[in-house]
Amino acid sequence: MPSRCPLCAEAGGVLIARSPRWRVIRAEDAAFPAFYRVVWNEHVPELSALSAAQRGECMDVVCTVEQVLIDALQPAKINLAALGNVVPHLHWHVIARFEADSHFPQPVWGTPQREQPDAVRLLKVGLNELDSRIKASLQHAFQCA
Amino acid sequence: MPSRCPLCAEAGGVLIARSPRWRVIRAEDAAFPAFYRVVWNEHVPELSALSAAQRGECMDVVCTVEQVLIDALQPAKINLAALGNVVPHLHWHVIARFEADSHFPQPVWGTPQREQPDAVRLLKVGLNELDSRIKASLQHAFQCA
Repeated sequence: MPSRCPLCAEAGGVLIARSPRWRVIRAEDAAFPAFYRVVWNEHVPELSALSAAQRGECMDVVCTVEQVLIDALQPAKINLAALGNVVPHLHWHVIARFEADSHFPQPVWGTPQREQPDAVRLLKVGLNELDSRIKASLQHAFQCA
Repeated sequence: MPSRCPLCAEAGGVLIARSPRWRVIRAEDAAFPAFYRVVWNEHVPELSALSAAQRGECMDVVCTVEQVLIDALQPAKINLAALGNVVPHLHWHVIARFEADSHFPQPVWGTPQREQPDAVRLLKVGLNELDSRIKASLQHAFQCA
């Protein structure tokens, strides 16, 4: 646990669910409100550092979040990414994208394509409800907290 | 196979290895020369559309490429992403990043941070050798072509 790693020190966002091995948080990004992260609790930089079983569980968590976002929001696309150039502690970005969001079809890290001052209105369900559905799906699949 | 999907019509880059289910290509990006893609051959948009076994194999391929890049290049970071906003056919970007590359620590889709006219010199081994090592590792792990 490097002392300056923010993902070792803090949850990193709104905590949705957690197990001893991982946690799911919501990133609180106003431009992309349905932006969640799957954080592996142990400080490892790269996916291939996990064992096959750990990697399988990590990607199962990613896919559980993805599937709830698809079912609840019918987004144009889900974007998945594990970058970690700034914080090299394994975390997956899981982001629901919409054709009317500020950057589509560019990545969220790319060039803005349009003004979208009210991105939350693109969501078919509210954030509290979305958080609850993700938590319930994770608890069902992983018996987590 | 949607007729206008470029990843249904063509390999999508320099073909490194292939199986009946997936292929690995090199993207030929001058700014990020060690940029590979794992393309799932069937036209599915999202990772969660794969079966558990397919998803496991897909991520094993991603991790095999990642591990060769780490071993061969000792990059600052590996970046993984499945976006597909423009081409919604499942493909994983696997990119070796270096502190001196044009965008680090920004994502490759972000704002350039510096001039880097000769990115290939950041690689400890040449691209042909890198391609060969990736192919050999994939053949060893998956008995693929």
